[in-house]
Amino acid sequence: MSPSAVSRDFTSSPTLDTTSKLTKAGTESALSKVTSNGTTTTGNDDIVVADLDASKCTVTHPPTFKPVPALDSAEVLSQSCTTDHMLTARWTEAGGWEAPEIKPYGALSLMPTASVLHYATECFEGMKAYRGADGKVRLFRPDRNAKRFLKSATRISLPAFSTHEFLKCLQRFVGVEARRWLPVDEKDDERFVYLRPTMIATAPALGVQKPKEALMYIIAVLFPRLDEPRRMPPAGAALATNGANGHAVGATPRPSTGMRLLASQHDIIRAWPGGFGNAKVGANYGPSLIAQGEARARGYDQILWLFGDECFVTEAGGSNFFVLWINEDGEKELITAPLGDGTILEGVTRASVLDLVRARGDVKVVERKFTMDEVVRAADQGRLLEGFGAGTAFFIAPVSDVHFRGLDVVFPLGKGEGAKFAMGIKDELKSIMYGRIQHEWGVVVEEL
Amino acid sequence: MSPSAVSRDFTSSPTLDTTSKLTKAGTESALSKVTSNGTTTTGNDDIVVADLDASKCTVTHPPTFKPVPALDSAEVLSQSCTTDHMLTARWTEAGGWEAPEIKPYGALSLMPTASVLHYATECFEGMKAYRGADGKVRLFRPDRNAKRFLKSATRISLPAFSTHEFLKCLQRFVGVEARRWLPVDEKDDERFVYLRPTMIATAPALGVQKPKEALMYIIAVLFPRLDEPRRMPPAGAALATNGANGHAVGATPRPSTGMRLLASQHDIIRAWPGGFGNAKVGANYGPSLIAQGEARARGYDQILWLFGDECFVTEAGGSNFFVLWINEDGEKELITAPLGDGTILEGVTRASVLDLVRARGDVKVVERKFTMDEVVRAADQGRLLEGFGAGTAFFIAPVSDVHFRGLDVVFPLGKGEGAKFAMGIKDELKSIMYGRIQHEWGVVVEEL
Repeated sequence: MSPSAVSRDFTSSPTLDTTSKLTKAGTESALSKVTSNGTTTTGNDDIVVADLDASKCTVTHPPTFKPVPALDSAEVLSQSCTTDHMLTARWTEAGGWEAPEIKPYGALSLMPTASVLHYATECFEGMKAYRGADGKVRLFRPDRNAKRFLKSATRISLPAFSTHEFLKCLQRFVGVEARRWLPVDEKDDERFVYLRPTMIATAPALGVQKPKEALMYIIAVLFPRLDEPRRMPPAGAALATNGANGHAVGATPRPSTGMRLLASQHDIIRAWPGGFGNAKVGANYGPSLIAQGEARARGYDQILWLFGDECFVTEAGGSNFFVLWINEDGEKELITAPLGDGTILEGVTRASVLDLVRARGDVKVVERKFTMDEVVRAADQGRLLEGFGAGTAFFIAPVSDVHFRGLDVVFPLGKGEGAKFAMGIKDELKSIMYGRIQHEWGVVVEEL
Repeated sequence: MSPSAVSRDFTSSPTLDTTSKLTKAGTESALSKVTSNGTTTTGNDDIVVADLDASKCTVTHPPTFKPVPALDSAEVLSQSCTTDHMLTARWTEAGGWEAPEIKPYGALSLMPTASVLHYATECFEGMKAYRGADGKVRLFRPDRNAKRFLKSATRISLPAFSTHEFLKCLQRFVGVEARRWLPVDEKDDERFVYLRPTMIATAPALGVQKPKEALMYIIAVLFPRLDEPRRMPPAGAALATNGANGHAVGATPRPSTGMRLLASQHDIIRAWPGGFGNAKVGANYGPSLIAQGEARARGYDQILWLFGDECFVTEAGGSNFFVLWINEDGEKELITAPLGDGTILEGVTRASVLDLVRARGDVKVVERKFTMDEVVRAADQGRLLEGFGAGTAFFIAPVSDVHFRGLDVVFPLGKGEGAKFAMGIKDELKSIMYGRIQHEWGVVVEEL
């Protein structure tokens, strides 16, 4: 596939846009430009630049390959164990996307003035590649991650790209890494690597402006199983031998009962309508760490992010949040916060849970705003059945209890009962991810 | 000064904090720990680590020095012209602050997993060093920047440091650069360099967690005079020869009447209560670029950020915003948004304007929430006198007009009248910065 070039569609130009919807107009215009014709244009009317082109991708191997550590090793628990290669693709406003390169994993060189280091011009995706029971490697609904990656990039003023070509790059990268990092292992039929597509603005100029140079890269990391604390060794040991290395948040020792959540206070808010809570941009994460650190210091795993005087329930740490309850009309209902106002990340796991449960039809499914008061009332009245986080990193993580301003809201799981509903969904999703059932959501990757 | 070490004050530990104020408690605890005894402690109760120590700073010069370009050159206009050196200081959770180094300016090496590239764990300051009429080099109220830098670092979970030692590092760096980059020049008695203290999280681990490694650095950039468009050459010429290099936002050609503002739409906000708008963290900037780019495309210089259904007036681009009007009681009044709810950056220029005008006593000074409707009504009734942005980069920038959802609110400056009040404040501040009057706000730097 050769780089395509089209003349600019002036009718969709944001510079000529006279509507009043500043952000939406800009975002949608940028999205439509790239998805309709597979090319990108610059802010300068006269220049047409190259789109991302997976067919140009080169591969260079490192002189020696790393040993693949055990999944319960300190290195894996620290979430710092990367694989042998990385994929990079450089973009400039003048020339567009350059040829992607799969090359030995290593440091990036950035000037101290690089936009990403000052203005958080960065976005990422979280995905996994799974070695299936049938020996095949699969991605799970990667088209959804690709579309969200584009949406996040556009929101943070990074360049657009063809999601089709991005997916081809991603598959190529996974194809290169799979044989060593996702070995066929009879004792462990549920191996995965975590994939982190990232885009950063690299232009070395301090002006607060749309970046003129960017780098897309994809790396893979061996992750511990954050959803299965029972499989993990006590993390203290890992920490003690680990010195200054990062110790994974998810690997904190905790009882095996489930995730413990601390509801956020009114003085810290993760996202706001008109903000960027629905984009996977760095700006959503750094500012949340201070609250998360305090949750952890108080013995909780994650913050349950509330919003507004009404204490609307939004997200649990970096995951979407679901409650299964008997609603006030006596129906069994699965509820989660809606996407409408832009404060909730459109999680791939979230969408998949909704799709699966709706298809099954045994439980009512609702996406609407709901409050902590409703959750507390359901608990008081014995109607609270289960709660769980849903996301790529923590997968389906059942909740044992929520501390909400002096109250402990305990789910049946926290009282020693199970989380049958959540675990059922998890098994169903795993069956797709690991190829135990054939499903269009499981996309097989060709190994190289 | 040797690195100091104290045992941990358990009474102020956030881990033992049982109050409900999640963020404030954590921030204030961290701040009090560092400011009261000049040392820092880690999250681990048993470890005491080294504080920043300017006395350990080493200096290494580059083999050759760069030529200093003319202030109207394309390189300066692009806001990418850095000086010969940079100051860096590394921090680890295990060891604390390592010895600062002043060394040749050059690229940073970061692993692709570095926290700053994913989670926006970054903050910065904007300051200037001025070559005075008396030949001396001055900083302007640097203690305020140092305190804000610490506050921003703490808000984004980066390490604390002694502001006193930071200021000594900064002065040492400026002292090294001043002779070449702030030459005594009889033809130009108002030379400055822009200083950018920065802190980034460098730990190579993908866990969403408080960073365990960080880098503080200080760089200096030759900036064009963003507040004085008349001094600038037409920027189109610079752009044409400048190719892919960053073209400075502030250098966009514009009429010499003043800054033109486009009021933000309801679907995009800069900051919110419980967010981080009062911290100088990257997360406030990247998400604003999309709106700013559209403002520029529509012929405006900056976004005037509004908040809420009431359309409260908050900030103008990266500057604080002031209005001078005759209030509804017939008094001449200077008004700006208050700091109370955490959405407004506590600007050093903002504070200085307030201090100066309060000391003068000729105009009433008010910090309160005010709305676009109030501004529109004042314009309709002929009570609107001046508007101006106030900040380090743009300094005091008088506003000619604001476009607010179909309405053009034109200040007298935009009708060809002056902005005498704003220009008077600017002259007064300049007199301090350039040492034409001796004032405690102007801190002389010793040249090396």
